[in-house]
This record gives sequence, structure tokens and C-alpha cells, in this order.
Amino acid sequence: MASINLIERILEGFDPVGNGLDNDFVLTKLTAMKGCGCKVPRDVLLQLLETFKTDLVINNEEVDIGLDSCVIPLRHPGLRLVQTTDFFYPLVDDPYIMGRITCANVLSDLYAMGVSECDNMLMLLGVAVDLTETQRDIIVRLFIQGFKDAADEADTKIRGGQTVRCPWLLLGGVATSVANESEIIKPLEGSRCKLLRMDKEKYGKIEEFGLVSAKIMTAFKQVCEQMCRLNRNAAKLLHKYEAHSSTDVTGFGILGHAENLARVQKQPVEFIIEKLPIIEYMDEIADKMIAAGGEGFRLFEGRSAETSGGLLIAMSEKNAKEYIQELHSLDRAPAWIIGRVAAKTNDSVARIIPNVLRQSISSSL
Amino acid sequence: MASINLIERILEGFDPVGNGLDNDFVLTKLTAMKGCGCKVPRDVLLQLLETFKTDLVINNEEVDIGLDSCVIPLRHPGLRLVQTTDFFYPLVDDPYIMGRITCANVLSDLYAMGVSECDNMLMLLGVAVDLTETQRDIIVRLFIQGFKDAADEADTKIRGGQTVRCPWLLLGGVATSVANESEIIKPLEGSRCKLLRMDKEKYGKIEEFGLVSAKIMTAFKQVCEQMCRLNRNAAKLLHKYEAHSSTDVTGFGILGHAENLARVQKQPVEFIIEKLPIIEYMDEIADKMIAAGGEGFRLFEGRSAETSGGLLIAMSEKNAKEYIQELHSLDRAPAWIIGRVAAKTNDSVARIIPNVLRQSISSSL
Repeated sequence: MASINLIERILEGFDPVGNGLDNDFVLTKLTAMKGCGCKVPRDVLLQLLETFKTDLVINNEEVDIGLDSCVIPLRHPGLRLVQTTDFFYPLVDDPYIMGRITCANVLSDLYAMGVSECDNMLMLLGVAVDLTETQRDIIVRLFIQGFKDAADEADTKIRGGQTVRCPWLLLGGVATSVANESEIIKPLEGSRCKLLRMDKEKYGKIEEFGLVSAKIMTAFKQVCEQMCRLNRNAAKLLHKYEAHSSTDVTGFGILGHAENLARVQKQPVEFIIEKLPIIEYMDEIADKMIAAGGEGFRLFEGRSAETSGGLLIAMSEKNAKEYIQELHSLDRAPAWIIGRVAAKTNDSVARIIPNVLRQSISSSL
Repeated sequence: MASINLIERILEGFDPVGNGLDNDFVLTKLTAMKGCGCKVPRDVLLQLLETFKTDLVINNEEVDIGLDSCVIPLRHPGLRLVQTTDFFYPLVDDPYIMGRITCANVLSDLYAMGVSECDNMLMLLGVAVDLTETQRDIIVRLFIQGFKDAADEADTKIRGGQTVRCPWLLLGGVATSVANESEIIKPLEGSRCKLLRMDKEKYGKIEEFGLVSAKIMTAFKQVCEQMCRLNRNAAKLLHKYEAHSSTDVTGFGILGHAENLARVQKQPVEFIIEKLPIIEYMDEIADKMIAAGGEGFRLFEGRSAETSGGLLIAMSEKNAKEYIQELHSLDRAPAWIIGRVAAKTNDSVARIIPNVLRQSISSSL
């Protein structure tokens, strides 16, 4: 199978029939949970992981469970093993796009540590048991193709994995890099600086509240493109612009990941989010959901789960401005300064200011 | 939670009530498939993976998809990344034992390459959605404890992973080692030699055919002990006794893995299996199942899936005998010469001789 043009594919939308599937085939129906909505809640997870507590280490040498990637000193001087894994369920209906998103999401955890070279990828796949053989073959091939195309784009290769049968279609991977110490930005060096964020808001199923379908489709396509986008250039530039700290935004939403990042700083800090970049039309949808008594994805609380988000970076204000310019010239995609870091005397926190600025992001597709 | 004595735990059996669960709680009911029975069939998998075909590499530098572990040359001279992943479903009812089995099984793929030092482990966990919170907390804690105790035994640490909600309880891990070239035995160097196998037959649910429960329980306990056993000493000794080739026996059964190993030899070979070591009473059970029209686990065909099996090793007959002696002195567990390797003029194969010798293995517990 030849490599597929991503943007064309997104703009065309997924055609089940053209791919050999029935007209009413819907990939996302193969699971009751989508994307990062499948995560075990953060507080429960931390409790369950307490068995590891005696081992938990975050220092200059080593980063343990609980952050984007683990970093392990190797038997070989100067080298560190940087490694991450993620798996979840389909949240868009094109298996090819899901393959790209899955790979981008796994890689993103390496990129969040400033590591831009991935030495190996493993692919994790649970094949839904209620697929026919034909459906299975079509879906799995498309998924693998998407995963592989994203890996190619990242100059890495898939050289292993595991495939099992499962009630739901399960998609994931493992990314590993053996890096020199100097390649790694550990989430430890927070100081007073600006917060910068490349926004990639994404949403699950959208209920109808008298919304305009065409606008939803435009937003959806933008979301797909954002989720497939690699944070690789973002990672490379972390070094040049002396980022103090970095993480990628996924299942816990921007505020959840800001809290995680604040929690591991050497000195107590406050991450103050003053701006929420939001994909065009999404704020309107969220407002209508909230008006109808819903949670509106908890978007304005900063708790909207993202499957494959951008990086949340702390760096000096001056560097942040230059970083955004250079990243834009490489990726043709925007990034924003979304807040600031303040010193604190006691426990680190992250918060969103009341009346946070909602910055609407229009599609570049 | 303190470390748990494995053998005591196996001999006592799992007590749901003593662990805070209901009397009728059965872990293996949380999935419709057990252990390696969940694998996508080998021929289907190879077809689906054909997307990667242009990348498939097995040479002196690199080992790609399709074997126990992948081996990747790194940017750092002389070093290789050796990496493997596995995940599956519960096949015994004690979550602690399942944790140990899962970890042993993942590590086994490294050990099959002669790599005895694991630099990092990731833990993969799908938490069954229909568990109550109490059940979830008890089961996940026990599973993690078992996984961690096995990792401790292997002198490695768990420093990352992913946890999602899933209809079935899903258990797995990733093992990674950055090794010197000399630490790795690539599955390439087959020549005329004896086949050696450390047997760890295991079985799923056993239907009643007028069998003796006490004998089944003894066999079951032996199976648990075997599945929890690390192949680490077996891996270390591969180097000392100049193994030509090695793999670990899991989901495809001993013949399936022998076929895989034969397939990647430089020169055409035939692996001839002359002896099947079988856990005591299992041959009787299989015979009765076959007499009743069943498949008898396909045990005598060499296709009985194992979740966490032993190593299948090719080495000279003289060395094999010494290897078995030394391994026994380290592990207090047996190993056997089970066949031989013959040269062939065309495609490599593996086969079991007609009237294969069934060697019954009695429990050492």
C-alpha cells in the first residue's frame, strides 16, 4: 500500500464503501469509550500506583512513573533510556487517521522531553472480536498504514508489537529513544517565565444543539489534522530556545497537565493560564451544551481531554515569542503564549484565571 | 504491601474472601479469552503485517518484527536496543500470580535473545469496566504487586505504563534493554545440533472427563509455578554454552515457535522434535478429551498455547547436557533435550516425529 496524503485524506473524509466496508460502518461504534475518555481517573490511578511509591524517583538522573516519559540512566556512561507507551480506543472513523493519531500521540511524550529522535516503535493492537474477517483485514491494514506513515514522517521505524483479540478495537504503541543526557529536557527546571502552548483542542461526539453541520465538519477536520501533527519540530526547538520545562497535553486536559508539570518542579510555582486557544466553533458548542445543563467538555475549566495534543512549555517570554515564529515557519501552524509562571511559597499549583481569554483558532486547511 | 512468597501463595491457592472479594469472584470470568488463546492466528497476523514487508529485516545488525524481540542498532557505537511487548488476559484467578506471569512472560522474550539484563519495564493495564471500585482496587493492587515482585526478582524496575478502562481485564508490559552486541544471541546461527527445551506446559480451563480433582490441582499449581518462573538463568547460560539459536515458547505452541525459529535460519534446517515433556496428568486429560472428540489442547501436535513458556534452544549435544546440569543447579528445575536439528536442501521446517515420546514431568512443589 502506498503512502497516503494526510491533508487530502482529511479533507475528503472517510468513505466506508470506497474502502470496502458497508455504508453504515462506523469505527467508533466498536468501543463504548473514545480516546482519552478511556483513562482511569487521575486520582484513582495515583492511588493504585502507590505500590511503586518506594521506587518513585524524579531527580537529575532519572524520571519515574507519572510523567510523559520515563528517563533511565543506562549501564553505558552518559546515555539515558527515554521511553513511553500509550493505548486507547478509536475516536475518529477513518482507521488510517486513527493510525496516524495513535503514532503521533505516542511520539509526543518523547517530544515533550525535548527528545526528537525516536529509535524504535512498537505497535499495540487489540482487534475487536465482533468484526467480520473482511472488516478486520481492511481496518487493521489501514490502521497499520497510518501508524507507519506517521512513523516514517518522524524518521523512525516500527519493529515489534503485539496483537490480541479484544471486545473493543484497541490502539497504541511504545516509543523508545536512547539519548545523550544533553538531548533531554527534564520537567524540573521551572522558574519565572511565560507559559506557551500549541493548541490542538479535540472533541468527541457532538450532540446537536441547533448547530451548523458545515461548521462542525470544518472544526472536525481541523481537529484531525491537529491530532495527526507531530510535535517533533516543537521538541527540536525546545533546546534552541532554552525551555525550562515541557509536557504534552492529553487525557487530563490542559489544566490537568499543567498541574502535573507544576507538581514536579524543584521550587514551588504557580502556573497561571490566562488564555485558552480553542478551535473555531468549539466555544459556541460548549456554551450551548452548558446552557442545556451539560458540562461542555469541561472545556472552559481546562479539563477537556485531548488524545494527541500539543506541548505545554515553560520558557522566558522573549524566547517564547521567537520560538513561536520559528515553529510557525517550520510547521505552518500556530502556537500561543497562554499564561505565566509565578513563584510560590508553598505547594505548586496550576489555575485558570476567571474570565480567561478565549482565543478562537480558525482552520488553516 | 510487602513482597509475597510465590511458592506459598501457589500452594495455598487464591482465597477471594481473604483478599476482600466475594466468595464467588472469579478473575478469569472477566474475559472470554484466556492467555495466549487471545492471539490473532499466526497466518492472519503475517498477512496483516505485510504493510511492513519492505522494512522487514533480519540480519547481523538488526532483527525486525516477527521474532521474540526486536534488535535495533543505535546511534551509539556497539550498542543495540532490544525490546519486546506482550499483553493478554487473565488465565488464573489470583491477580498476584497473574502479575508475576505477565512480567515473566514479557521478560522471557529478552531472555530468549540471551539478554539477561532488563533496563526498564513498562506496565500495560486494561481495567475491566464491570468491576466495582472495591474489586478494581483489590485486583489492580494485587496485579501490580505481582508484576513488581517479578521485576524485583529480575533486578529491573517498572518506570512507566498506561492504564485504560476496557471490557476485559487486560494485562501486559514492555521490556527494554540497551545491550552490547556481544550480549545478544540472534536467531540466525542454526547449525547441526541438538534441540533443548525447558518445558512449562500450561493449560486453560479443564473440562471434566471423570478426572481426579486432586491431580488437576497439583498439575495446576505446577503450571502456575512454571509460568511465574523467569528464564533469566537460562538466558545467562546461553552464552557460556554457546547456544546457536534460541526462542521462547508461548502462544503458538512448541511446534509453532520451532517453525518460526527454523524459518529465520541462514541455511535451511529441519527441527525434529522427538520428545514432548508434559506436566504430569496432562497427557491423560488430553487423551480423554481427544477420545471424546475434542482437540486435547492440540497438545500432541505441539500446538498447545503457552502463556509464559520456557526457552527452545539449539546447541551442541555435549553442551546441552552440561547446560541442563548447570541450569538445574541454579533454578532447581528441569530441562530436556527434546530433539535434533538436521540440514536440509530447501525450505526450513519443524516437525514432530510420529509416536513422539511423551515425557511426564512430576511436580517439584
